[in-house]
Amino acid sequence: MYDLETMGKEAKAMSVYVRKLSTNQKNEILFACAKKLEENAKKILPENKKDMDKTDPSRTAFNDRLLLNESRIAGMAEGIRKVARHDDPTGETLYMKTLPNGLKVGEKRVPIGVIALIYEGRPNVTTDSFALIFKAGNACVLRGSKEAINSNIALVKILQETLEQLGHPRKIIQLVEDTSRETAAKLMKMDKYIDVLIPRGGAGLIASAVQNSTIPVIATGVGNCHIYVDEFADLEKAIPLIVNAKTQRPGVCNACEKLLIHRKIAEDFTPVICRALHKAKVEIRGDEFVRKNFDQAKPATEEDWDTEYLDMIIGIKVVENFDDAVSHIGKYSTGHSDAILTENYNNANAFTELVDSAAVYVNASTRFTDGEEFGLGAEVGISTQKLHARGPMGLTALTSTKFIIFGNGQIRA
Amino acid sequence: MYDLETMGKEAKAMSVYVRKLSTNQKNEILFACAKKLEENAKKILPENKKDMDKTDPSRTAFNDRLLLNESRIAGMAEGIRKVARHDDPTGETLYMKTLPNGLKVGEKRVPIGVIALIYEGRPNVTTDSFALIFKAGNACVLRGSKEAINSNIALVKILQETLEQLGHPRKIIQLVEDTSRETAAKLMKMDKYIDVLIPRGGAGLIASAVQNSTIPVIATGVGNCHIYVDEFADLEKAIPLIVNAKTQRPGVCNACEKLLIHRKIAEDFTPVICRALHKAKVEIRGDEFVRKNFDQAKPATEEDWDTEYLDMIIGIKVVENFDDAVSHIGKYSTGHSDAILTENYNNANAFTELVDSAAVYVNASTRFTDGEEFGLGAEVGISTQKLHARGPMGLTALTSTKFIIFGNGQIRA
Repeated sequence: MYDLETMGKEAKAMSVYVRKLSTNQKNEILFACAKKLEENAKKILPENKKDMDKTDPSRTAFNDRLLLNESRIAGMAEGIRKVARHDDPTGETLYMKTLPNGLKVGEKRVPIGVIALIYEGRPNVTTDSFALIFKAGNACVLRGSKEAINSNIALVKILQETLEQLGHPRKIIQLVEDTSRETAAKLMKMDKYIDVLIPRGGAGLIASAVQNSTIPVIATGVGNCHIYVDEFADLEKAIPLIVNAKTQRPGVCNACEKLLIHRKIAEDFTPVICRALHKAKVEIRGDEFVRKNFDQAKPATEEDWDTEYLDMIIGIKVVENFDDAVSHIGKYSTGHSDAILTENYNNANAFTELVDSAAVYVNASTRFTDGEEFGLGAEVGISTQKLHARGPMGLTALTSTKFIIFGNGQIRA
Repeated sequence: MYDLETMGKEAKAMSVYVRKLSTNQKNEILFACAKKLEENAKKILPENKKDMDKTDPSRTAFNDRLLLNESRIAGMAEGIRKVARHDDPTGETLYMKTLPNGLKVGEKRVPIGVIALIYEGRPNVTTDSFALIFKAGNACVLRGSKEAINSNIALVKILQETLEQLGHPRKIIQLVEDTSRETAAKLMKMDKYIDVLIPRGGAGLIASAVQNSTIPVIATGVGNCHIYVDEFADLEKAIPLIVNAKTQRPGVCNACEKLLIHRKIAEDFTPVICRALHKAKVEIRGDEFVRKNFDQAKPATEEDWDTEYLDMIIGIKVVENFDDAVSHIGKYSTGHSDAILTENYNNANAFTELVDSAAVYVNASTRFTDGEEFGLGAEVGISTQKLHARGPMGLTALTSTKFIIFGNGQIRA
């Protein structure tokens, strides 16, 4: 069995080391890592080729994500530089108040400690995650996929060499080189050394982490995202917005998967939006009303309302009223991103109150749910859980807080 | 097997109901619950007597915590009223900014949904927890101990009747009446319906929740709390402060358990503080230096440095310097509350930077780590984990946030 125990102990020790680094020191390291990656592209590419040679050639989308070339390595380096240029989330005192007994009590943003990431697919996650976890002042343990193992070993080696050349310990970042399921399962139980586990990948990986981890998990989630066209919607604006939310990038978690149309406007609006979506090559699965009003619509089953297609398919349903829309969303939404299109003040406000999702929209495409788009800078993922972080997670999601108390001899009566 | 599935579904439905209640409605319910508890003391006391009749008479401290009487019921009612008078943590928009494309993006504080609590001991936890969980806008599932089951059934019945009389559903609060371990274990796996699990009790219960729960856990922790007397400490102030931190209430998690003394002042200070603690009836376990300088000191073993005594015992050790103190605390502290006593500006600041605990003190007793003392109002517990909430948890720890986005037709390019 891979020696995770030693790795854990070392990571814990490294978390103390990283916590003491100044923002300038962290940025210097990140810029140096970016430069070193670019300079060593010729060492990385042959290792990536070993990974590429092992893959099944028929998995074209997968293979495209795995492939590295000079320009992609430059992109990874630029990703690291972007994190270096971002404000350091740690060190901020959120408030400081003076209590009646003269004690000054405040809360301060601090690193978490050791953050482990279990991820699939693309090698750029290796460098992105290191940059984010490290910038927030944490030690980093990475466990990538077996498909990318040679690429990941090469990348982490370069990051470690850069750390060493600048006089810092290599073990600030550690890669679990054993990609077996047993080792991943053991890693998930290392709550003694690891403070947070972030699973980043498919639903299976995330479910496994939630079920098995004894380390607190920040789970990113799937997006069965809804757009509800209210009776008071501006239907002119609605058409390009819905087409955008569905088709601009259908394979991602904030793409629109379901359309709900208010009964009162359904007769006019259904054929129009169906034609627009159909023209954009979207397969339409509708309820009875939709099928009656648009011949090419296929029937939507109960399973459809529950499904994140991640594809050029949309489910369309006519709802009786506002409450019916909110209750459908409450039942089927995965709590990622849901939108109302309306010009009515009360319905707009009520929707943002009643829909319990990470991002609730009025009159905008669900595709904006993203750290960059929301102005948070680089993003670790999108949380659909309700503890610690919800929605796009920027650097702040990789921090904790602590109370600091300044006294002059106070004792408790 | 107890029908937890139905309970979970009902709790989920109730969370939607509670989320819609206004602060006025929630407060009206809480004040009515408080009144009803006082009016029904005579119904509660015979049920509490059934619990008392079953206990082992030799467990005096335990039995005292279990016992209810009219004045304790009045205290429980007052606890509920205090929560009612506290600000509602939900509904606040934390910020709202306008993006370059005109989208307004903000984060808003919202209820979590369904919160379950597994707890031991005192029946007042039943009413306190309901008040806090409900005030923060959540549905409440409680699983108390088998020792208090009759008291808890009586209390929850009164809360449910009050809800019903005011025209609200009883199931806003539900009690798991089956107190078997199997049912508790099953409850910990109900992540489909329960958003957060709070274990409140001994280390065994908390460890079991961390190990077995698939629901995100907010763990409260033990406190092996340190006071470090720096070479630059004001030794006059130090004596009453240390005696207070150790003896004012030795059985609680923020009591001082370990004292570290800088080598340079150890010869003068050790006998003085040992005499003061000894006079206050504290058993002293010391390293070799301490034993040489104070005859009544017993030897401290490696195990002592790791132990939360919760008793009139203290471990005392002489450290070589500031770094040695910080590193001892890093190794043995449970990350609850640790203090430095110093008049030196740099050491005070460095201590608050380097010690990674929920509450880090300069020149004050560790006994202040408490929601009331810190001015947070009623407290759910003290978290020593780093995700979501750290340190004393007020009502805010029982909330989440969501992004709200207001647009006028924005689509993603």
